[in-house]
Amino acid sequence: MPSSQRQPDQTRARILAAAQAAFAEQGYDRASVAAICRAAGVTKGGFYHHFESKQALFWELLSQWLDGLDGRLSLLEQGAESVPDQLVAMTGVVGHVLAAAAGQLPIYIEYLTQALRDPELQAATGAPYARYHQRIAALIRRGVEEGSLRPAPPEATASVVLGLVMGLLVQALLAPEAADWQQAAAEALRILLKGLAKE
Amino acid sequence: MPSSQRQPDQTRARILAAAQAAFAEQGYDRASVAAICRAAGVTKGGFYHHFESKQALFWELLSQWLDGLDGRLSLLEQGAESVPDQLVAMTGVVGHVLAAAAGQLPIYIEYLTQALRDPELQAATGAPYARYHQRIAALIRRGVEEGSLRPAPPEATASVVLGLVMGLLVQALLAPEAADWQQAAAEALRILLKGLAKE
Repeated sequence: MPSSQRQPDQTRARILAAAQAAFAEQGYDRASVAAICRAAGVTKGGFYHHFESKQALFWELLSQWLDGLDGRLSLLEQGAESVPDQLVAMTGVVGHVLAAAAGQLPIYIEYLTQALRDPELQAATGAPYARYHQRIAALIRRGVEEGSLRPAPPEATASVVLGLVMGLLVQALLAPEAADWQQAAAEALRILLKGLAKE
Repeated sequence: MPSSQRQPDQTRARILAAAQAAFAEQGYDRASVAAICRAAGVTKGGFYHHFESKQALFWELLSQWLDGLDGRLSLLEQGAESVPDQLVAMTGVVGHVLAAAAGQLPIYIEYLTQALRDPELQAATGAPYARYHQRIAALIRRGVEEGSLRPAPPEATASVVLGLVMGLLVQALLAPEAADWQQAAAEALRILLKGLAKE
């Protein structure tokens, strides 16, 4: 969904920022295109020049966030040595992303809710999900091959790793004060590394 | 939130069933009280005799589901022997609950979204969450005491266990066909047991 403008488009950026704030405050359903236009200082015509629909705008916000996470994970794959080292580094990245995105995360939970009711959106969500899943499964497979992990099934193990990340995320969002989330993430990593270690 | 009627109230049950279907199909925001009344065959007066608001109705649906899960977990605590055995049995219960609730789960994700935007709802959600967290922390503490688990921190470990359950749930909802969820749950259990085992 890249804009057709050649120069960085300030209007587009303003709409995205206004939408992010509106979705976070009012939720996807209640945040109207009219209110987003008002907050961004653009006409409806200006809005629809940049985005086909509210849903397209929503998807663009999610894609930007996922691309940022992808970039960080790729950077990390070049650096670390053994697979256990990479799992340790991944925990750091996820913690970083969570801290940076704290105010925006409700939008992605909202998006998730939308996706559950919309087959088209569900298909679109499936792509980045599958990408992370593949990335982690490949990591596990490599760990088994290099002998740093026990022979765990890569696909199922990737689901467990993604599950841990998503599950801690949901809890931290729902009950930010209920636990020490950094300690929980460290313990998750400890369990994961010990649970996947060679006998 | 018990009804003040002495006899099981058919109207109340009809409203709950209609609301559950409406929330699942249209989402919380879009499902109107008017539509729920129509589907349940009650007047608005009848509706408000039983429920203070749409939110109270939503909360009642969630409470019923959580109470059912509580009952199953309590039953299980009486049966199992060692803490690792209990963790194995818990996986079975969670799998069972997920299979039974498959069609209704989007409502609870929806509820979660609502809770993120509503401090009152967030406080109400905190109570059952804290109950599960305590229950699991007590289980881990007992496992450490009985010597069947390594000395893991009970609170943080409980967050990890809850995280695994919630994370697998979210994935199974978002991408039901993407993986073998039973295999993933079994692998999660294997990692957990090995990750918490005594050296």
